[in-house]
Amino acid sequence: MALTLGEIVAALGGELHGDPALAVNRLAPLDTAQPGELSFLSNPRYRQQLAGSQAGCVIVAPALQDEARSRGACITTADPYLYFARLTRLWKERHAGESGARIHPSAAIDPGAHIDPTARVGALCVVERGARIGAGTVLKARVVVAEGCVVGERCVIQSGAVIGGDGFGFALHEGAWEKIEQLGAVRIGNDVEIGANTCIDRGALDDTVIEDGVKLDNLIQVAHNCRIGRNTAIAGCTGIAGSTAIGANCTIGGAAMIVGHITIADNVNISAGTFVSRSIRQPGTYTGVFPMDDNVSWEKNAAALRQLYRLRERVKALEKK
Amino acid sequence: MALTLGEIVAALGGELHGDPALAVNRLAPLDTAQPGELSFLSNPRYRQQLAGSQAGCVIVAPALQDEARSRGACITTADPYLYFARLTRLWKERHAGESGARIHPSAAIDPGAHIDPTARVGALCVVERGARIGAGTVLKARVVVAEGCVVGERCVIQSGAVIGGDGFGFALHEGAWEKIEQLGAVRIGNDVEIGANTCIDRGALDDTVIEDGVKLDNLIQVAHNCRIGRNTAIAGCTGIAGSTAIGANCTIGGAAMIVGHITIADNVNISAGTFVSRSIRQPGTYTGVFPMDDNVSWEKNAAALRQLYRLRERVKALEKK
Amino acid sequence: MALTLGEIVAALGGELHGDPALAVNRLAPLDTAQPGELSFLSNPRYRQQLAGSQAGCVIVAPALQDEARSRGACITTADPYLYFARLTRLWKERHAGESGARIHPSAAIDPGAHIDPTARVGALCVVERGARIGAGTVLKARVVVAEGCVVGERCVIQSGAVIGGDGFGFALHEGAWEKIEQLGAVRIGNDVEIGANTCIDRGALDDTVIEDGVKLDNLIQVAHNCRIGRNTAIAGCTGIAGSTAIGANCTIGGAAMIVGHITIADNVNISAGTFVSRSIRQPGTYTGVFPMDDNVSWEKNAAALRQLYRLRERVKALEKK
Repeated sequence: MALTLGEIVAALGGELHGDPALAVNRLAPLDTAQPGELSFLSNPRYRQQLAGSQAGCVIVAPALQDEARSRGACITTADPYLYFARLTRLWKERHAGESGARIHPSAAIDPGAHIDPTARVGALCVVERGARIGAGTVLKARVVVAEGCVVGERCVIQSGAVIGGDGFGFALHEGAWEKIEQLGAVRIGNDVEIGANTCIDRGALDDTVIEDGVKLDNLIQVAHNCRIGRNTAIAGCTGIAGSTAIGANCTIGGAAMIVGHITIADNVNISAGTFVSRSIRQPGTYTGVFPMDDNVSWEKNAAALRQLYRLRERVKALEKK
Repeated sequence: MALTLGEIVAALGGELHGDPALAVNRLAPLDTAQPGELSFLSNPRYRQQLAGSQAGCVIVAPALQDEARSRGACITTADPYLYFARLTRLWKERHAGESGARIHPSAAIDPGAHIDPTARVGALCVVERGARIGAGTVLKARVVVAEGCVVGERCVIQSGAVIGGDGFGFALHEGAWEKIEQLGAVRIGNDVEIGANTCIDRGALDDTVIEDGVKLDNLIQVAHNCRIGRNTAIAGCTGIAGSTAIGANCTIGGAAMIVGHITIADNVNISAGTFVSRSIRQPGTYTGVFPMDDNVSWEKNAAALRQLYRLRERVKALEKK
Repeated sequence: MALTLGEIVAALGGELHGDPALAVNRLAPLDTAQPGELSFLSNPRYRQQLAGSQAGCVIVAPALQDEARSRGACITTADPYLYFARLTRLWKERHAGESGARIHPSAAIDPGAHIDPTARVGALCVVERGARIGAGTVLKARVVVAEGCVVGERCVIQSGAVIGGDGFGFALHEGAWEKIEQLGAVRIGNDVEIGANTCIDRGALDDTVIEDGVKLDNLIQVAHNCRIGRNTAIAGCTGIAGSTAIGANCTIGGAAMIVGHITIADNVNISAGTFVSRSIRQPGTYTGVFPMDDNVSWEKNAAALRQLYRLRERVKALEKK
């Protein structure tokens, strides 16, 4: 279950400085890698770990060739992190065991669902009537793709995700809520990843849309009628309320909360924990998080904060004197 | 798979202005509706879309009859949104395909559970011993109703919801946590909707109670011993800690966090993202969210916030001069 | 289905003041307990409920013996809450019905998984190849333990939990995200509890580690490469980003958000709703929550907050005069 450096470079390119016959037993972080293991250095923050690393081989940028070579083998490549990403895929592919049935026999697939012959459906998944799963897509265990929802090609959907639950729509009538049936579906593009226990609700009338290349982490809520643009990545525990449109190439930090019926432009970065209460028209980084402090200081500041506009009035009064 | 305007009005009432034989193929939003489609206008904000809409028919309030009629058919009714809600239900009912088994054969139903003959249980659900599912209730796919928990009539429970997990209760003993078995259950009233992957924990001794007409969105946590009052609606990603009692007819925005052992009165509105740290005795709207800003401005304000009580002292000192 | 006071004291110790033949039908809170029921008093806050309680017997500290005895039977013990915890376990054990199959026939267990003969696996669980479940551990319904993940002894994993989903790792290449396969696993120690629909991602290279005695509530996200130290307890809806190390004996309140690549010392308490943006080196309590207010006051304070650093400048200017 090992790969030689020669096999790795033959598959992925890069320039090898060292013995092509050297066997790699494992990929490992720089600080804990052992002689039979391969590591990488991409973030300059960790450069000081390089000299001391016992890794048998390290993937580095060309500028670090001498430094890396002085301690063992290295592979040089313009983008070591990308190389490492591809190496993990090669590694997984070479080390996969018997892959078992393409569609796990325990999955509940409606006869009216369409699953591409190259897709894989894990144990205890549910794929309902009219749902479509594209070529090369993988549903891990216990995924639901509900009625009429479409998942594109080469997607990965982690366990427990629910694609196509009902959107949260009710009309108030004499103090009680009457359900609005959600007649739309969910349309997911190609190369999308959806995290464990993440929920994407079906649209009320039109579809909820996740465009190509979007990456969603775990425990995210995407409400009905949202649209998430191409290659946008969203970290875990984030909630996106209904009918909000997020642009392409955005990054959204964990536990952000985005209100409904707003628009976020392309190339916007939302910091983790930020509550987004209005549309964002300009690219940039946006934040709104209460700074953590020791509890005693926080209590004093929070108390002052509750009187802040009065404090501003007092300053105004002083200025007038 | 179409309904005529005549059929719709016969089923739901309202006053039809136009040809009862006109066939509707789809319900659609005002701005994208096509001639064979039916839309509605309830929020005055969208009134300017009315004149330009290509919808074959629009549901409007009587005051807008002339404006709507000038561009095609319309149905007038006092509450267009409510009419639309009912129309979605009629639509769904008329367009449902073969509904399959009432209890999906893949569901794991304990012989000691009781499921009303009119309830429906989706694929891969688990209904444990002593659990009861009321008349007309629908469990979508992959719902858990654990031991002894009771779900009322006409409820809808979305996929992945867990009703009756153990409450989070431990006693600290010499630095380690000893489990407190959760001997209560969950009691859910009638006409309740529970969202995808939402969790409602069983009570420690008494039951956790969700009253009639409550609507819970996705990924909500309701801890042990909570009580949520009649017709309260709670948006996604909200957490409610143990033993908190929420009144009737409240609305709670998404990603709110409500601490344990407090009481919230009837008719309280909590804004999305708000941390509720104390009981609320008076109806009204309550908010506590850090305002989002561009990151540079946020950093400056956050730094100042950490010294806020000192700033207040400085203002005090100035005032004394 | 009752226990006598004599049986309880014989099993759990403590000093009984009252009739050992008295039968207890139920454990109940002090304020609602009936004569055939047993309650406890540990929090002095509820002491005023003692005199009026109709409970047939109350568990109290020795100092309250006379007060408790004056109204009925009591059991005295140094730590009434701990005694109560143990009593709930005794109660559950004595009242458990037929326990059914050790491994529910609907569970999807890979032949290459190892499940200890004393472990229990609930309905519709998935245990993948190479996963290991330790002695006495209980997986409730619909739990996923993915490939190669290890769960120790005497753990309880609530329904819907996903152990070993892929960590959220991608390398950006020409605007698109390339997946980094997650080659590590999840290692969970002994006596760990994991809540409903909680997600623990597998490590990128090394494992994600949950140490002995950790208690995780529902809907928690633990990202790849995290380590959570012994006996730390974390309340629901909390998110922990990748590669963060949390010490032992910490408590983390609900809906906290902890950023990645930081370290939190032992014996740290994080208040609910706090965003933890940096390492914490010292034990103590840390908080960062926007104080809730009525909406009108909040709006005024939030507006002032957006100008806070300017206000500070104005105060500085006044001080210079």
